[in-house]
Order: sequence, then structure tokens, then C-alpha cells
Amino acid sequence: MAEILADRAGVVPPRLADTMRYSALGGGKRFRPFLLIESARLFDLEADRVLNAACALEFVHCYSLMHDDLPAMDNDDLRHGQPTAHLAYDEATAILAGDALLTLAFETLSHPATHPDAAVRAELVLDLAQSAGWRGMAGGQMLDLAAETTSQASLTEIARIQSLKTGALIDYACRAGATLAAAPEADKSALESYTRALGLAFQVADDLLDAEGDAAVVGKATGKDATAGKATFVSLLGLEGARAKLRELEATAVTALAPFGESARTLAAAANFVANRRH
Amino acid sequence: MAEILADRAGVVPPRLADTMRYSALGGGKRFRPFLLIESARLFDLEADRVLNAACALEFVHCYSLMHDDLPAMDNDDLRHGQPTAHLAYDEATAILAGDALLTLAFETLSHPATHPDAAVRAELVLDLAQSAGWRGMAGGQMLDLAAETTSQASLTEIARIQSLKTGALIDYACRAGATLAAAPEADKSALESYTRALGLAFQVADDLLDAEGDAAVVGKATGKDATAGKATFVSLLGLEGARAKLRELEATAVTALAPFGESARTLAAAANFVANRRH
Repeated sequence: MAEILADRAGVVPPRLADTMRYSALGGGKRFRPFLLIESARLFDLEADRVLNAACALEFVHCYSLMHDDLPAMDNDDLRHGQPTAHLAYDEATAILAGDALLTLAFETLSHPATHPDAAVRAELVLDLAQSAGWRGMAGGQMLDLAAETTSQASLTEIARIQSLKTGALIDYACRAGATLAAAPEADKSALESYTRALGLAFQVADDLLDAEGDAAVVGKATGKDATAGKATFVSLLGLEGARAKLRELEATAVTALAPFGESARTLAAAANFVANRRH
Repeated sequence: MAEILADRAGVVPPRLADTMRYSALGGGKRFRPFLLIESARLFDLEADRVLNAACALEFVHCYSLMHDDLPAMDNDDLRHGQPTAHLAYDEATAILAGDALLTLAFETLSHPATHPDAAVRAELVLDLAQSAGWRGMAGGQMLDLAAETTSQASLTEIARIQSLKTGALIDYACRAGATLAAAPEADKSALESYTRALGLAFQVADDLLDAEGDAAVVGKATGKDATAGKATFVSLLGLEGARAKLRELEATAVTALAPFGESARTLAAAANFVANRRH
């Protein structure tokens, strides 16, 4: 990722490139690239063959965090334990650097170095754009902004927002790994069941962390949802109910991987990690 | 364009889709799609075959205007004679709708309906991402923001900012038309000479409009550059010098089209239009 963001030609305005690197290289779990790499590995495609696509996916995730953190959006001060980009630089630069990271994702995916077959590259671009766009992540963020001012959202609505805002890119991660490896359709379906449960588990865990977590460990502000009176899995199910839901989703995710046998043990461990993460 | 933005499935949050339509369908010269369509027509590819790509390009232009107009950027109130998106809706929605339009551009370009050959689609995506990203339009906007607070920029620097911020998408427009039509390389070169002169002419004309124009006719605030003490072609060359430069660029653009003969008369007229536009 540092390689793609290096700007060896030196033609990018330094402040813009710095902000893009600050956001993309400044930490984070790299959960989505991990999923993409492990999904490709299920079909015997090694990590070094899918790194470009994994970086592209992380760029989209990082752009979304940078824009979500803006004062006009969630107005967050802290990300991965560091000042958010609009504080470390400024608001205009954070907006532009986010735009540029999103654009770089598509530049990276469509580049011949990512995959020799143009049909695969075009499919990866189409799928990512659909997952990240108005019918996916961006739509989810819009719904989430609206939901922040209401505690009336139902469990179905909360789950729908999650499936768009967080789930869409997590689904994409596994699908892209399978696409790069030319996996059979049946295997793609099994992976989809896994990512559906995993994405939901990820959000339930996020809500639990917000309700229970320590900002110093989590790396961002906690307790925000309750303060804002926002409907979450925790406010709707209670702490115990949310924990039970999380364990159920963890089991569903692990079970969905059964067809892949032993080769899916790292993906199964990811489901355990998500259900038990403390940050 | 209205067709692509219709969201017939009704799955996009209405406020997000409305803001995207407000920005993309709310007026504007459609100059870039026009250039793409006319460039394809030079090689006998009719407009209805390139409309999707033309829409994708306009989405990128509209997203860039929406983000440039934000309070943290140029803080503009008026666009195409209407309130800017962050005033008509709100800032968070304008940021998200811009993100979603940019993403929709890549979704549209990579969709099989845009061109039957995946290699052409992947090339269109790569070229657009390079033209709009950190080494292109977004980089130009970053430089432009920095230049706004200095009257010290040289003519070379101003021309470089223009070539990135405005020129990159204008170049892309003609190149994409030629790519869609599988035009020979020599013809692409001739077109490139045309768009280089045209893009620069476009910016000189913009600076002249800002210096001389009437906001009611131009559809956005005028006189901003002088008030801000910003270096422009007008501040560096004077009104007469800028007008002379514009006429010279107009002639260069028209001359570059000579190899295409009579079939390029609409593109030649576009150069005349740019050099003489009043809005």
C-alpha cells in the first residue's frame, strides 16, 4: 500500500499525498484487505497476486472514514488513536484527499498490474462501485446520518443501515477474492453467507464497543451513541441481548465456511476475532 | 443522464438521490459530454453508443463542482443560477452526494451496457481515474486552494494548475470518445493538441468572465479572484493580454483539427464558443 501511495514521480501536490498517506497508512485493522486475501487463498491464489485489489479496497474504506469523520458528518476528533485528518491537516484537504483515495481505488483496480484479464478488472470495478456507491456504502451513511437523530429506528432498519454502510464492503472483500481467483459460483454463495453474518457481527460488536469500550483502547470516541440517543443493536436488544446476537452470528459465519474445510480456518478465526474484539 | 439517475428500484435513500440529481441535472453547459460525443462522431461512432460514458464524465464534473463549492473549499452560494447543493440540502448530504456521483461514474463506465469490450471499459476507467485523481483534477484543486491565498503564482504555475484542474477532464473527454471508437493513435494525438489549447482557452475565458462578467448572466459569483488577490491569467497578462491569449489559443485549437477536415466543424465551433462565451 505504501508502494502505491509513494508518488515516485513526485507530481502530486505534497500536502494532498501526505494526507492520503496519513489516512491510509495511519493504522487500522486492515480487516477488508485481510478478507480479500484470505478469500482468494481459499482458491489457491496467493496474497502477492491480489495485493493491488486489497489496497484498492482499503483506500475506499479509508476515504469513507475520512469523510465520515468530517465536522459536517460525525465530527470525530480521533481515529486509530490519532487526530482525524481534518484536524491534522484541514477540512478542505481532508475532503480532497478522501476524493483522491476513492479515485485511486478505481485507478488501482483497473490497472493491468492488478489482473491480466481486463474482464476481471472491469468486473472488480463494477462490483466495488456498486458496493461503495448510492445503493451501498454511501447510501448506508446517508441513512445512518438520518438515524442519528432518532431513537425510533427498528431492528430491521438498523440491520439494513448496517448491511449497506459496513456490510457492503465486507461482502465485496470476499467476493473480490473469489473473482480474482475465478472461484465457482457455489463457493461464492457459501462465502456470501459467511460475509453476511460476519458484517452484521462486526456492527453488533461495534455497538457493544461504543457502549462498553474504553476510548484509549478502541482508538476513537466511545459512548457517543447513547449520548446522541441513537438506536443501536445495544439500545434495541440490551447488552446481554446484543452479546447473544453476536455469539449467534459468530456461529452462523463459522458454519457457512464448512464446505471449505481446513483451508478456511483463518477466515473462521476472523469471525472469532470480530465477536471478541476489544478495539 | 436522467435515466441513469432515476433509481427505478427505489433502493437509494431519497435525499441522497435527490441531491445527486439536483447537482447533475440542474443545468450546466454539458461541455465535457459534448466533447466526448463529438470526438466519437469523428470516427463514425454515433452519440447513442457513447451516451453512458458521456454521462459518467459529467457525473465526475458535477461531483467536483459540488465539493469545490463546499464552505471548507470555495464556499460558493450560487451554481448555474441556483443555490449550491450544501445550501439547497446540507453540507453532509452534499459531501455524500458528491462521493456517490464520483462512484456512480465508475459504476457506469465499467458496466457492460457502456461498451461490449471489457478491455475498452477497463481502459476508460483507468484513464478517467488518472485524469480525475491525485495526479489530475483533485491535484489541481489542491494547488488551486493553495494558490488562492497568493498573488505570487507565475504564468507557468497558473497554467499547470489549469491543466490539472480543468484540462485533465477536457483532455479525457476527447480521448474517451476516440477510445470508444477505437481511433488510430495519430488521430488521438491530433485531438490531444486540440484539447490542450481548448482547455487552456476555457480557463482564460473563465478568468476573463470572473473579471468582467455579470453574476446574473454567468450564473455564479464574479469578481471573486480580484477580491481575493488571486493570481489569474487576467492579473498576470492584463485584460487585453488575456484576450489576445484567448484568440491565439482559439486559433491553435482550430488548426489542430485540420486533419479531420469538414467532419470536425462542430469541435471547431466549440473552440469558437469557448473563446467567445459570456457564461
